[in-house]
Amino acid sequence: MPDDNNPIPHWQRQDLPPMLSRRFEFETYSETRRFLDGVAELAEAAQHYPNLSFGKTYVSVTLDADGKKVGPDLVALAQQIDSLVAGTP
Amino acid sequence: MPDDNNPIPHWQRQDLPPMLSRRFEFETYSETRRFLDGVAELAEAAQHYPNLSFGKTYVSVTLDADGKKVGPDLVALAQQIDSLVAGTP
Repeated sequence: MPDDNNPIPHWQRQDLPPMLSRRFEFETYSETRRFLDGVAELAEAAQHYPNLSFGKTYVSVTLDADGKKVGPDLVALAQQIDSLVAGTP
Repeated sequence: MPDDNNPIPHWQRQDLPPMLSRRFEFETYSETRRFLDGVAELAEAAQHYPNLSFGKTYVSVTLDADGKKVGPDLVALAQQIDSLVAGTP
């Protein structure tokens, strides 16, 4: 059931270990690269380095809470990453 | 036993499905980014898109032979990627 109060409905939450993850799909390699560059900028600004797996047209982002509970900082970073693909479902 | 004739001794070869993979470790995030940018350029030149997984200081590269045997083109790409870290063991 969708939770209207969930700020990051497209992300999977995992508890053990605590992390957030989302897979993004793109039409072209250049879109994929642009997204990766955007994530890199956000990561540097937040000083939090996601684990990313990507191929030509997909990127899987994992935000690791470093053993702590998933907190507001991590959720905020997930929202910023979402905003890179705003308009895309 | 090391094979002196193996042009890519640091890569793991897998047969099912056919692929080559190697994990690279770096001291800093900026080295990691520089390496990723280098791989991206080689990938575009070769029109072969590796699957990459990376975090702050590591990159795992997987070159998928697309169901065919690992051929000379893929080995050449692996060697080019190796050359990005030439001098590093």
